[in-house]
Amino acid sequence: MPDRRNINIPRIEIVGITALPEIENGAELGLMIVMAAIGQDTSLEDGDILVVTQKVISKAEGRIVDLRTVTPSERGLKLSIETERDPRLVELILRESKSLIKIDSERGIIIAETHHGFICANAGIDQSNVAGEHMVSLLPKDPDGSARRIREEVAQVLGVRVAVIISDTFGRAWREGQVNFAIGVSGIDPILDYRGSLDKQGSVLKTTSIAIADELVAAGEMVMGKAEGIPVALIRGYRYQPSAGGVAYLLRDPASDLFR
Amino acid sequence: MPDRRNINIPRIEIVGITALPEIENGAELGLMIVMAAIGQDTSLEDGDILVVTQKVISKAEGRIVDLRTVTPSERGLKLSIETERDPRLVELILRESKSLIKIDSERGIIIAETHHGFICANAGIDQSNVAGEHMVSLLPKDPDGSARRIREEVAQVLGVRVAVIISDTFGRAWREGQVNFAIGVSGIDPILDYRGSLDKQGSVLKTTSIAIADELVAAGEMVMGKAEGIPVALIRGYRYQPSAGGVAYLLRDPASDLFR
Repeated sequence: MPDRRNINIPRIEIVGITALPEIENGAELGLMIVMAAIGQDTSLEDGDILVVTQKVISKAEGRIVDLRTVTPSERGLKLSIETERDPRLVELILRESKSLIKIDSERGIIIAETHHGFICANAGIDQSNVAGEHMVSLLPKDPDGSARRIREEVAQVLGVRVAVIISDTFGRAWREGQVNFAIGVSGIDPILDYRGSLDKQGSVLKTTSIAIADELVAAGEMVMGKAEGIPVALIRGYRYQPSAGGVAYLLRDPASDLFR
Repeated sequence: MPDRRNINIPRIEIVGITALPEIENGAELGLMIVMAAIGQDTSLEDGDILVVTQKVISKAEGRIVDLRTVTPSERGLKLSIETERDPRLVELILRESKSLIKIDSERGIIIAETHHGFICANAGIDQSNVAGEHMVSLLPKDPDGSARRIREEVAQVLGVRVAVIISDTFGRAWREGQVNFAIGVSGIDPILDYRGSLDKQGSVLKTTSIAIADELVAAGEMVMGKAEGIPVALIRGYRYQPSAGGVAYLLRDPASDLFR
């Protein structure tokens, strides 16, 4: 679109970083993203935001498990019978969970709270885009750390400051369809705080805070897709306040949560 | 970013449409959006997606209410005392609701299900960005219709087929911060159905459906902001299957909803 000179018109670009090789355990993802971007004539710039899908993080961090190596506990066996799910998968769900939020035995649905505090189906364990029919991916152990390492690698290689958000796809209460959620955040404040700001009419805004990290990873979906397997989205042009980050800011204190 | 020739690299642009005048009851929004876009050297194209914030729709459709004209019912009075909220506002919340989902008397929070089926605080009634301290905006009566009318106006004026999604900002269960949700959809399928698709490894994807309309309006937030009052985002470059739309596809059947 023309008129790139007018700086008062907010304008964002989102580009899929397509040329990443298959990710192995121990991969230096930051470096690989930089190389893949260069391979498509894009060099990262200060202020860019990288949205990285959980799956490649889990692969790079060895969080892929062969179900055949998992021995279910008694509790796992019991829940697997109740839900008619694979007992080894159910065992992993229990190991990855702080608590179980809802179980629908009839439909075999297990909604769990992970040790990080994410509430999602199967504690985020997933079989898609993982090679081998017995292989599943677990969520990264410390997704903020995963994001920070990518950011640091990019800074080291290019001398450029980016923000990195790790994304996974979860369902929601009340609404159909899944959307991307931020599960790790580094280099950007995940919450945009409007408390005390004035609206166009000069009234104080009632809306206090926007979960901008969740909106950024949702935007990334447009270039990532599920079936295409494009693992990284580059968002350029969104102005934000650099900050340490931390996904915990996005998690509601259970004591003030009306829905669990 | 360079390399615009490579069509295999997905690339999206999001632009804020900034130059809309203050919206009055009866405004022809589609026409006004076309004019505002032209005013910033952007002409709409086939396949563009317009994200339009609820507030301007409500203004154009006369869904602004002066609280001083509202007489609370007995039920409204009772709930207003329980929650320590303005009885006239509480009365409007009740009128706009099909059911009340949760009430937190201590914090004065009312989560309601609107007649459309949206679950949100205060049935979507809001005082920000509305002129006058007694004035509040209600959600549009038929947001799919609102979206369709804008789409038709754009087609009439420019001969161009766009999709239109009406957006509002709601809180979520379990997570802090609000995000944009689609409340009206025309010209695009709000759900992206991956059932039966294969992943990169050739396995059938377990993730069945993505609420792409919700992700598109979330992406719009980057150029709209809350305080700036930019009411329209133009998303270009996202390929989708044109369809009638309809927000009902995004609403989970209460019978299969685990969280109410």
